[in-house]
Amino acid sequence: MTTSVIDLRSDTVTRPTPAMLEAMFQARVGDDVYEEDPTVRALEQEAADRFGLEAGLFCPSGTMTNQIAIKAHTEPLSEVICEQTSHIYLWEVGGIAFHSGASVALLPGNRGRLTAAQVEAAIRPQNVHYPTTSLISLENTHNRGGGSCYELAEIGAIAEVAQRHRIPLHLDGARIFNALVATGQDAREYGRLFDTVSVCLSKGLGAPVGSVLLGSQTFIQKTKRIRKVMGGGMRQAGYLAAAGLYALHHHVDRLADDHRRARQLGTALASRPYVAEVLPVETNLVIFRLHDTTPADGFLAHLEQHGIKASSFGPQMIRFVTHLDVDDAMLTRIEEALAAL
Amino acid sequence: MTTSVIDLRSDTVTRPTPAMLEAMFQARVGDDVYEEDPTVRALEQEAADRFGLEAGLFCPSGTMTNQIAIKAHTEPLSEVICEQTSHIYLWEVGGIAFHSGASVALLPGNRGRLTAAQVEAAIRPQNVHYPTTSLISLENTHNRGGGSCYELAEIGAIAEVAQRHRIPLHLDGARIFNALVATGQDAREYGRLFDTVSVCLSKGLGAPVGSVLLGSQTFIQKTKRIRKVMGGGMRQAGYLAAAGLYALHHHVDRLADDHRRARQLGTALASRPYVAEVLPVETNLVIFRLHDTTPADGFLAHLEQHGIKASSFGPQMIRFVTHLDVDDAMLTRIEEALAAL
Amino acid sequence: MTTSVIDLRSDTVTRPTPAMLEAMFQARVGDDVYEEDPTVRALEQEAADRFGLEAGLFCPSGTMTNQIAIKAHTEPLSEVICEQTSHIYLWEVGGIAFHSGASVALLPGNRGRLTAAQVEAAIRPQNVHYPTTSLISLENTHNRGGGSCYELAEIGAIAEVAQRHRIPLHLDGARIFNALVATGQDAREYGRLFDTVSVCLSKGLGAPVGSVLLGSQTFIQKTKRIRKVMGGGMRQAGYLAAAGLYALHHHVDRLADDHRRARQLGTALASRPYVAEVLPVETNLVIFRLHDTTPADGFLAHLEQHGIKASSFGPQMIRFVTHLDVDDAMLTRIEEALAAL
Amino acid sequence: MTTSVIDLRSDTVTRPTPAMLEAMFQARVGDDVYEEDPTVRALEQEAADRFGLEAGLFCPSGTMTNQIAIKAHTEPLSEVICEQTSHIYLWEVGGIAFHSGASVALLPGNRGRLTAAQVEAAIRPQNVHYPTTSLISLENTHNRGGGSCYELAEIGAIAEVAQRHRIPLHLDGARIFNALVATGQDAREYGRLFDTVSVCLSKGLGAPVGSVLLGSQTFIQKTKRIRKVMGGGMRQAGYLAAAGLYALHHHVDRLADDHRRARQLGTALASRPYVAEVLPVETNLVIFRLHDTTPADGFLAHLEQHGIKASSFGPQMIRFVTHLDVDDAMLTRIEEALAAL
Repeated sequence: MTTSVIDLRSDTVTRPTPAMLEAMFQARVGDDVYEEDPTVRALEQEAADRFGLEAGLFCPSGTMTNQIAIKAHTEPLSEVICEQTSHIYLWEVGGIAFHSGASVALLPGNRGRLTAAQVEAAIRPQNVHYPTTSLISLENTHNRGGGSCYELAEIGAIAEVAQRHRIPLHLDGARIFNALVATGQDAREYGRLFDTVSVCLSKGLGAPVGSVLLGSQTFIQKTKRIRKVMGGGMRQAGYLAAAGLYALHHHVDRLADDHRRARQLGTALASRPYVAEVLPVETNLVIFRLHDTTPADGFLAHLEQHGIKASSFGPQMIRFVTHLDVDDAMLTRIEEALAAL
Repeated sequence: MTTSVIDLRSDTVTRPTPAMLEAMFQARVGDDVYEEDPTVRALEQEAADRFGLEAGLFCPSGTMTNQIAIKAHTEPLSEVICEQTSHIYLWEVGGIAFHSGASVALLPGNRGRLTAAQVEAAIRPQNVHYPTTSLISLENTHNRGGGSCYELAEIGAIAEVAQRHRIPLHLDGARIFNALVATGQDAREYGRLFDTVSVCLSKGLGAPVGSVLLGSQTFIQKTKRIRKVMGGGMRQAGYLAAAGLYALHHHVDRLADDHRRARQLGTALASRPYVAEVLPVETNLVIFRLHDTTPADGFLAHLEQHGIKASSFGPQMIRFVTHLDVDDAMLTRIEEALAAL
Repeated sequence: MTTSVIDLRSDTVTRPTPAMLEAMFQARVGDDVYEEDPTVRALEQEAADRFGLEAGLFCPSGTMTNQIAIKAHTEPLSEVICEQTSHIYLWEVGGIAFHSGASVALLPGNRGRLTAAQVEAAIRPQNVHYPTTSLISLENTHNRGGGSCYELAEIGAIAEVAQRHRIPLHLDGARIFNALVATGQDAREYGRLFDTVSVCLSKGLGAPVGSVLLGSQTFIQKTKRIRKVMGGGMRQAGYLAAAGLYALHHHVDRLADDHRRARQLGTALASRPYVAEVLPVETNLVIFRLHDTTPADGFLAHLEQHGIKASSFGPQMIRFVTHLDVDDAMLTRIEEALAAL
Repeated sequence: MTTSVIDLRSDTVTRPTPAMLEAMFQARVGDDVYEEDPTVRALEQEAADRFGLEAGLFCPSGTMTNQIAIKAHTEPLSEVICEQTSHIYLWEVGGIAFHSGASVALLPGNRGRLTAAQVEAAIRPQNVHYPTTSLISLENTHNRGGGSCYELAEIGAIAEVAQRHRIPLHLDGARIFNALVATGQDAREYGRLFDTVSVCLSKGLGAPVGSVLLGSQTFIQKTKRIRKVMGGGMRQAGYLAAAGLYALHHHVDRLADDHRRARQLGTALASRPYVAEVLPVETNLVIFRLHDTTPADGFLAHLEQHGIKASSFGPQMIRFVTHLDVDDAMLTRIEEALAAL
């Protein structure tokens, strides 16, 4: 792979900047299974503090943080309410059933966003034929919804339903910092509304590996055994955590640039005759649909010839993702490639 | 409960006729865990023969036959395609996740019936983020769909998709005899199209307890261990099987009477001003929706006062079920009660 | 199978007496999924009352009552302490792992009986590498231990450990009535010492099908959903329950005859030169080991020629079980067959 | 933690040497979920080549490699044969039941080593009451056995049993390089005898994080989905893999030094009056038992005062582990501390 390739497949493909790499190799480390890695502990605490939650758990992936949270919140014979295209259901290999033996109540969202009324109607009544509703999970920004963001009032209404029914509320915050930057919302509001939050460090934030699960002290204590059985107990993980800390300190505000570039791409795409529809661009994801006369395979091959990687996202659907490794010069190249088709 | 109560809640409430009871009383039995109960074996074989399948497995419930089939067809990290209101998903306590650790692809049906195109689109492509599609399950008649029946051509098209993708096809035939009687279809066609079929003996057929799972010799052999671990290994189960045999011999054709009565109820309901909609009546289920001005609770209480039991089936939805213990005289009483509201 | 066959394989092979059969067919029944079968409810309550526990749950098998109890007491990432040859571990198809995702701490018993010291040493300390101990399960009489019985003081000491560590205590009472009759213990003592008790009706008691799980109201309420998902929700199950009720009323005291006959068989076996060892006979099980010079297969074939069925129980080990369908005349025939070898 | 602390608790506590850290810093990385991290791929291939196996899978922990292997080899209703103090059973949080729903056949080893006869006797015969034996797992060196090593002939005999019964054979090789160095065995022999091998990079080899699961191409392909659902899909994991590669190149032969130091510690301990027994020291683990007159807590506190950390390993049992961060000068300090008690 040469440096001239532009990779729009995902914001997970970024590589650390020299400064992040330097931070990693200055990290003080210890055996985190003994809870003795100071950098891991610093990251967990700082991430928790940002969201006004008590404690954090560093994990090797976002899938692990979500699946641990689901496991810890639920029990077999219970059910998780989530959006029907949510990452926890659609792209985590059926983990809700696999790890937790829990059923799913799948709701159709408005570009991934649920309403309080939908959620409340999906809560199962007491009946020996039904599982019990044990968890409500939201995703913000919503990947399949095209990086769409919830308004706090929408979440607040869902949280009110959750609290009234004494059902915990989890946030898959794989791209929560994109939402915070795009909307100007305060992370601490999320800590007030959600029982637990998954935060990914390796997507928009640009760290190489890792996510943090946030919640109460009691909850995080409970999750340690689950992380262990899932194989997430790492030893000197501080090298990875150092990148996460650096990302929290230096790579949050710059997400606004990714969003600006995504909007610019959205505008460029909307003007191309072979594009049937572009989902509203709210953050760093641009999801669009090609006219049936432009096969997705051919479109992707054309981009590949111009050194641009992207991925299909369903029939005739394409996703572009802007991130740390996509700059303005690349944007120009992408626009030229789109124009050349 | 006096004899004058009319119970429309379900066709599971029937009690054996004197002749069925006599058949039970005369049954030859043995220890079925040692596979030595002759009546159980006779029932299993006769049910299999009817559907042109090789072997059968007698179980204490339809939930057990379905869940055993799902377990035997799937493995963890795989996914079951089914209709979003199907019994296996909606009323079996989340058993797909609980027993099999399998995910679900939930499709919206036309009164419970899926199309081949829907099913094919739901088959998961190879991708490390996805479970593999391991089973397609249909339900006929479809309970939530109001006792609706598939045409054989519809099933044939789905079976073609299943075979082409080498995915097994299961039928939840809780009320398959209602479908056969209503459409005049041949049970053996089902054995040709489906890999496995669940047949319930205690619904329309009127036996007190039991269902039979049908499939190939190899498949049924595999299920015996699953039945054992689920606690379905019964000893002298021949008393129950005898009722099932009697029902196969004597209670199939009479389902036409239940269907006629259901249609009559459907017509009566359609003429009442407080009924907003009656689903087309194809078999023995009558599902209707009350106008918002007639609260379901009050409606059910009114029926109760007239000695009629029925149950709600979602907001403002009511289900009436005709069966062995509902005769024409009762039908008149029901119509009077409906008119009196 | 002719009437002259003597079946010593298990006490599960018995067929109802005419009086039990009459009781079955006089039973008043209803739909037990709606909790409306009066005979099932009567059996559940009477069994609970006998043991001084609050409530009961009728199930199609002892495996189901045990596995439901284990499921309801435990959660994944926990561990069950039991004897290494206990039925719940050795003969329930690995159900502890399958249904409950729970690990096992397997202790070597003295003919199946554990001591309080053993149990206490097996309780897991708090450590992220360990599951938590969630259940202690005893078996009385102990099948693999040769029908051995606990003294109440032994159980009391274990119960004290369980209570001190706040770990529930379950009894697999598949043959608890054999223990009660052999020792003269009071069933109500068991209700005081154990949180839950499985009672089998189809072994020594001679009912065709069924077991009852006993516990507190809260516990039994919780188990109903588990029974449903396992497929144990039966409809007009009162026919089976009636046999169980009859057995409770008429077949308990007569177990003393089975025990006397078992002792007689034990004495006869001990005098045969080809028998290396007979486990002490405490109830209705006679487990013995053949000398290596007498192959078990040949021994069983010899018995078969004399119309006697028995089963091997490990290398060179044979189990004889006395029960309702083994009378004194048969005993003479068995002794003659043993002498003829 | 100051540099003067001597940490004998585990060989997992080591921190990278400057040269290893430099190798990490220079690593070329990519998104490993897209299988594009060149350093991860190089490590996987090199580890596989060493053992003469086809392919490898890099994971964040040894628990994950073991549990993935168990999951991929087994299915629910099957059983794993392993030693009763093996790591996969005793220290992986009951993961065999949790992830795989599989039962365990626990055999008592000779310091952790099983014999072919034991293994063969534990294979379950066909019986509806039993799970099927789906996996045999060995551990070498054996942790609880005091770092004991198998002879190849012993393994060969077990492998012959496994192959004859068509049961796969897995090696928990958390410390396999210790065994290879101590015995002079060839890693490629292991690839011939075992279907799959877990190799840990963060114990004796001194890498900060990571293990590799080795097997056939087909097997490893199957495991990728399991790693994903367990949350082991890491992005730019090459930084960790680079440390593993460095360890394979530079830290294998030096294990002989750890073994020499462990023997020296063993000798020193054997001469102390408060030590009742020292298990034979074969590799880098020294397990010893204190006389009852010397409480383990007090012994560990005494060491702590001398800046030495060690951990208890059962009642009165202590484990010392030598590793990369324990040098000869430290050995002298340890001996002095032992003498001072």
